[in-house]
Amino acid sequence: MSPTRTVFFISDGTGITAETLGNSLLTQFEGLEFRQRRIPFVDSADKAQRCMEQIRATRLADGIRPIVFTSLVKPELNRVLRRADALFLDLFEKFIEPMEQELGIDSTHAVGRFHTTAHREDYMRRIEAINYTLAHDDGVSSTDLGLSDIILVGVSRSGKTPTSLYLAMQFGVKSANYPLIPEDFERAELPGGLGRYRDKLFGLTITPERLHHIRSERRPDSRYASLANCRFEVEQAQRLMQREGIPFIESTAKSIEEIATTILHERRIGAAHD
Amino acid sequence: MSPTRTVFFISDGTGITAETLGNSLLTQFEGLEFRQRRIPFVDSADKAQRCMEQIRATRLADGIRPIVFTSLVKPELNRVLRRADALFLDLFEKFIEPMEQELGIDSTHAVGRFHTTAHREDYMRRIEAINYTLAHDDGVSSTDLGLSDIILVGVSRSGKTPTSLYLAMQFGVKSANYPLIPEDFERAELPGGLGRYRDKLFGLTITPERLHHIRSERRPDSRYASLANCRFEVEQAQRLMQREGIPFIESTAKSIEEIATTILHERRIGAAHD
Repeated sequence: MSPTRTVFFISDGTGITAETLGNSLLTQFEGLEFRQRRIPFVDSADKAQRCMEQIRATRLADGIRPIVFTSLVKPELNRVLRRADALFLDLFEKFIEPMEQELGIDSTHAVGRFHTTAHREDYMRRIEAINYTLAHDDGVSSTDLGLSDIILVGVSRSGKTPTSLYLAMQFGVKSANYPLIPEDFERAELPGGLGRYRDKLFGLTITPERLHHIRSERRPDSRYASLANCRFEVEQAQRLMQREGIPFIESTAKSIEEIATTILHERRIGAAHD
Repeated sequence: MSPTRTVFFISDGTGITAETLGNSLLTQFEGLEFRQRRIPFVDSADKAQRCMEQIRATRLADGIRPIVFTSLVKPELNRVLRRADALFLDLFEKFIEPMEQELGIDSTHAVGRFHTTAHREDYMRRIEAINYTLAHDDGVSSTDLGLSDIILVGVSRSGKTPTSLYLAMQFGVKSANYPLIPEDFERAELPGGLGRYRDKLFGLTITPERLHHIRSERRPDSRYASLANCRFEVEQAQRLMQREGIPFIESTAKSIEEIATTILHERRIGAAHD
């Protein structure tokens, strides 16, 4: 057994990008365990010094070199960190130099360059989308459905709410969602006058086994959660979506990010920002 | 005027990481405009070929080389893309080789290695946190408050809901939130028996001018949105939080990501994953 490595994600911002990229790289190494630490807002020599000391102490305690992903705009902070013994992988310096050459100008090396007018507008768009999505979750309101970018449909617990919220929060996409319930199957009709918004509709489906598992955590041993009922609902919902010509994807083995991105990709929303 | 460059984000996954990192690098170059295109799920030679042709066509149409951020696990797909004339910045290859050397094993070069048991558990934790947060938004329920990781307080429209949802979605943190309203200031007391959960409380504050602006979009010319009332509420809320010893941050110039990460950092939640 090799000792468990510590992996640091050190950033002058939130560190979320460093952590996400780092995680996807770490999953490429099978069978290894890593201990992860994210240290955000490292934007001064003092803070860099304390991080460096923490890396050194970890190196000693673990008996093996840590891996350190950094996303630091200021080269002098990187230099402080590098006095510790570790594998340093810098998300910033690797890319900024070729970009400077290509663009023919120097980068500003300024921390927190996200607060431009464009960024503020994007922020307001996301907040507005979140509010819209909360007001149109689970079919609670059919007012202003015409303002939506996407309307998700699917049986209860097929992942509509998290997907809608992610679409709003990450992409500023106004996303409503409607549950498909047994009455809709009987009537063989879409609920809530959704037929008028056919070009906005997108379906989520799921395997009956997975749905049974999810519903059982909420209401164990109920008819609602039974495998037979899950099979019936999933089959009927897929039949309805096929007949109505609604594109749909299987959510079972996908992350929220993957489902959301697939929907935008298929609906050609947000792929181009111009 | 130099021509507007096109920037591609090409990934075998969602492309969200490539786009986020790419955007933070682009903001380092002041005064330049970029046209952005994200192309997700490029996981076959066919799709890579079509991307390559799109880059070539863009190169011709723009009259200037595009910048292409790639996050592709398979080197052969990168080789296909590179037949176009562009600046290629690969998030994967720059890091995977030094990691292979450090770890002493080869990477798997397998696409979509996110569907491990650990990943599935993380996914369920996030879904559970989202459900918890939706059920505890805006003080609607004080049931199970003891199960929360964080309880946000602040005046109406200070950013509590988006922050709570982001904490749940990104970090799997169960986050409730309570509005502070004029009655709370009169009673000089925290609402809803929050006093029992002092170690979970965190406050959001905002400048009265910004609050006035946000509230005016909802209810223009109302007393609720008036600058005088916003000043009063913000001042009273801050006084209440100070007296009750609740840490708080100013949300005005911060993104949702920054607010959420700051709260976790200050409350020492989620910084260590072991």
